[in-house]
Amino acid sequence: MTFSQFEIRAGAYYDSVILMQLQKGLAGLPGVVDAGVVMATPANRDVLLSTGFSLDGIEASPDDLLIIVKGESETAVSEAIAQVDTLLKKRQSGGSGDYRPKSLKSAVSIQPDANWVLVSVPGRYATDVCHDALDEGKNVFLYSDNVSIEDEATLKKKAQSLGLLVMGPDCGTAVINGIGLGFANTVRQGNIGIVGASGTGMQAIMSEIHQLGGGISQAIGTGGRDLKDSVGGITFEQGLLALGNDDETDVIVMISKPPSPEIANRLLATAQSMQKKTVVYFLGDSLPATRSISYLTFASSMSETARTAVQLSQAPKNSRAQTSPTSPPSPGYLRALFSGGTLAFELLTTLQKVVHPLYTNIPLRPDQKLPDSLQSQGHTILDLGEDEFTQGRLHPMMDNDLRMRRFKQEMSDPEAQMLVLDVVLGEGAHPDPAAELAPLVKTAVSEHNKDVVILVVGTEDDPQNKQHQIEQFEEAGAEVIDNVQEFVAYVATEFSSRHVPDLPAVSLGHETIAINVGVETFYDSVKSQGGTAVHVDWRPPAGGNEKLMAILAKMKSKK
Amino acid sequence: MTFSQFEIRAGAYYDSVILMQLQKGLAGLPGVVDAGVVMATPANRDVLLSTGFSLDGIEASPDDLLIIVKGESETAVSEAIAQVDTLLKKRQSGGSGDYRPKSLKSAVSIQPDANWVLVSVPGRYATDVCHDALDEGKNVFLYSDNVSIEDEATLKKKAQSLGLLVMGPDCGTAVINGIGLGFANTVRQGNIGIVGASGTGMQAIMSEIHQLGGGISQAIGTGGRDLKDSVGGITFEQGLLALGNDDETDVIVMISKPPSPEIANRLLATAQSMQKKTVVYFLGDSLPATRSISYLTFASSMSETARTAVQLSQAPKNSRAQTSPTSPPSPGYLRALFSGGTLAFELLTTLQKVVHPLYTNIPLRPDQKLPDSLQSQGHTILDLGEDEFTQGRLHPMMDNDLRMRRFKQEMSDPEAQMLVLDVVLGEGAHPDPAAELAPLVKTAVSEHNKDVVILVVGTEDDPQNKQHQIEQFEEAGAEVIDNVQEFVAYVATEFSSRHVPDLPAVSLGHETIAINVGVETFYDSVKSQGGTAVHVDWRPPAGGNEKLMAILAKMKSKK
Repeated sequence: MTFSQFEIRAGAYYDSVILMQLQKGLAGLPGVVDAGVVMATPANRDVLLSTGFSLDGIEASPDDLLIIVKGESETAVSEAIAQVDTLLKKRQSGGSGDYRPKSLKSAVSIQPDANWVLVSVPGRYATDVCHDALDEGKNVFLYSDNVSIEDEATLKKKAQSLGLLVMGPDCGTAVINGIGLGFANTVRQGNIGIVGASGTGMQAIMSEIHQLGGGISQAIGTGGRDLKDSVGGITFEQGLLALGNDDETDVIVMISKPPSPEIANRLLATAQSMQKKTVVYFLGDSLPATRSISYLTFASSMSETARTAVQLSQAPKNSRAQTSPTSPPSPGYLRALFSGGTLAFELLTTLQKVVHPLYTNIPLRPDQKLPDSLQSQGHTILDLGEDEFTQGRLHPMMDNDLRMRRFKQEMSDPEAQMLVLDVVLGEGAHPDPAAELAPLVKTAVSEHNKDVVILVVGTEDDPQNKQHQIEQFEEAGAEVIDNVQEFVAYVATEFSSRHVPDLPAVSLGHETIAINVGVETFYDSVKSQGGTAVHVDWRPPAGGNEKLMAILAKMKSKK
Repeated sequence: MTFSQFEIRAGAYYDSVILMQLQKGLAGLPGVVDAGVVMATPANRDVLLSTGFSLDGIEASPDDLLIIVKGESETAVSEAIAQVDTLLKKRQSGGSGDYRPKSLKSAVSIQPDANWVLVSVPGRYATDVCHDALDEGKNVFLYSDNVSIEDEATLKKKAQSLGLLVMGPDCGTAVINGIGLGFANTVRQGNIGIVGASGTGMQAIMSEIHQLGGGISQAIGTGGRDLKDSVGGITFEQGLLALGNDDETDVIVMISKPPSPEIANRLLATAQSMQKKTVVYFLGDSLPATRSISYLTFASSMSETARTAVQLSQAPKNSRAQTSPTSPPSPGYLRALFSGGTLAFELLTTLQKVVHPLYTNIPLRPDQKLPDSLQSQGHTILDLGEDEFTQGRLHPMMDNDLRMRRFKQEMSDPEAQMLVLDVVLGEGAHPDPAAELAPLVKTAVSEHNKDVVILVVGTEDDPQNKQHQIEQFEEAGAEVIDNVQEFVAYVATEFSSRHVPDLPAVSLGHETIAINVGVETFYDSVKSQGGTAVHVDWRPPAGGNEKLMAILAKMKSKK
């Protein structure tokens, strides 16, 4: 038979470390079987129930602290509960003996060269602390969650205009100038910079980079929601720019869940403009049909990302990638007329990573749908073997009539810059495609000033004489490629967006000097790594009283 | 000024090659500027309009043949139209002089050792021709489209029970015993077998295999809809079995659009059971977080598929893959309790390729959602860092309380076989996870007979002493892995489904002897490759008269 006693402290504020230590302290008292010290949320109540506590008659709200003790006797549990304040005081009065300012402002006056404020107070207070930090000209590491996305967007726009970084909310990991913030691994210094929306992802990647002999320059966390449309990837973009401008960084790693196509395109365009090898890992995303497009290499796991980054970081600095043009993408459009559906598909999946918008009659997303298949617009990829084109007609691999008509239409369009055809050889296909298509190619090149790229699929043993076909097309002025991956890489590189944002530069400095507002472990951690830090003895404004806080806020007229 | 004349032939039947030759013939006549010979579908009418024909006053239905000629004078166009029957007769009376039986049955009596019937008649007639072929004990290459999916399912179920293959409908490509059917490239013989739902995909892959010095044993096409739920991947599965049992095939390639999870799992389980290296390319699908799971290697492009297949085909035959168990997967379940969200994510994306069903509190699909996060079922992957678990609690990387409680719960579950934990070291994390977790691991291993796998993330410079942590867990009886890719490969290999279907075996034979019913080019193609073929001089039953056909069908009582 066990006995149980509980206490409810309404609206109490203690940081989670203190609460966990209280729980352990209680559980260690004589006669105590188990203890729970949690905010009384439904989830926590369920956990307590499933681990054997009875919550009958306990009425508490999610903002209340619930302390419950289970023990062998009534005496044991009452004496344990009676110890709560003693155990709490113990923690609070301990500490390193350093001076603890009571506000951010006084911390700044003590340590004016601080460049970072680490914020881990409960979410409902965190936004104001962050605004104060930005107003003081400091970057922010925001570990707290339960900050609204509207507040996040407001903070980040302000930070962006000031050339400051807000890493978060819900940012668990960063490494700035060799100092780990939040959860971070001890990794050698090196030339790989990371920017990421996933904390454990960054930890695993940096740990495996270290295992492979590589090193980290900086690891910038953005928080899990940075790439949502309402925030727009502000911190991610600032991070890419900072790493692009950082002399210590030769290789950039990007990790996050896949953003929207518009945001992905803008970020990848920014990465391309940094002109540093960049490894891109969008969790759960499909890969393009070529691993690399200009400076970007796409990976599909944390281990692969680390491995690829280390390989790239060890390449000689002056080796230029074969597909790394310095010129801007072509102003005109791509018009690709395919006979083979899967060939069109691979160009589409590849191009859509680095070009936006795109139009096609085989859309993978609604916004890609070409409104009228008979009329190209912007960059257009067509599968002319689709049903809509082949009712009662021969397939375009057998007969060139439809494609020749469409090719003429495209070459007369001044907006079209590159015309693409696939030529699939072999049994069943047209006996001599070059005889019909090469003259048109020649006209497009010499009279209409178009670039023409031909993808040839087939072998030297096919009936059409592959070598002869290639020669005819080359003589007509086309670029001829007979490997699908090389082909998609060539076209994607040609049109891959580039984008240099015009923003105040973020300066990461050379040291990390931190002001800690919130859970003490972050302060301890910076100090134990040999960094400089000040811990603020923070209390919620107006003792946590929401009404009073609102009045204070109005008086400060901060917003 | 141009003149135009047209003719409509209602319900006419001519194969598309003949119609295209008619169009070319007309376009070549004196004074003719352009000609169109098409079935009058809306799409074809649009194409004619966009290429400059006027269709005013032309009333024709999609089943009507529309012949239109544009020329320099009225005489030119009327004389051209007058030539139509002459041009048509020219084609029909030509030919190689071989005897052409008038029915499939007589073709079989001439060539009883035929093993394939090639069908390319219009869709509405094709189903009956295929049933006749199966009744004669022949495999079917079905190029025709416009066959209903219900007919496809019926044909394939019949074929499956007879140990025969139906490749199609809408199957454009196959290579059987060195003979290309439909669109196919001339590729050296070798030890790579392909089964695919994508024609041009198979062509590009086989061509690049050839370019790299490899060769093809067989290339089995399934048609584009084979993997739809109502068909269920029948031909694909038969193809995998045939290649698995074929002594000439050492490496299998699979290419298609991604099927449903159930069908994908069954096919990959079948492939695993063939115990041959298999390269899997599901177009547009994301990759698992490890490239290989047991015999399966996942690729993300046609070129990569070809390259990987050739590499595997050149490996010494007696080299056993490190992760190729011959024992069946564990009967018990996986229970994975993660503190790091991205680590849970990579195990989930990897495991879901080869195990079904799976449950998790971070579902990627609705069917994966764990109904009650506090209660595992089947294979369960949990992210214990998710909000539902961390309200007012410390994150599980800092504090082991929640995970220890859950671990105890799982180890007491007789259905659980493998328990997994990630242990993330570094700043901010628990100072000595092994001190708290290893004793529990030991209990799970020695008292509950569970397998325990620990993924350690961190470096030797982290504060927790990584080597010591690993040793503690190993002493407690756990398998400890400190690389994410190795870890997911280990777990996925352990549970990867295997499945040997109990079906009549398909025999591909050693030669390809074909009976052609439909477009003559397929017959010509087989002959020109040195194969044996008979061409059936086929006409629609009852002269294409639908009413009469229905009466005949009832009389035959075939269905």
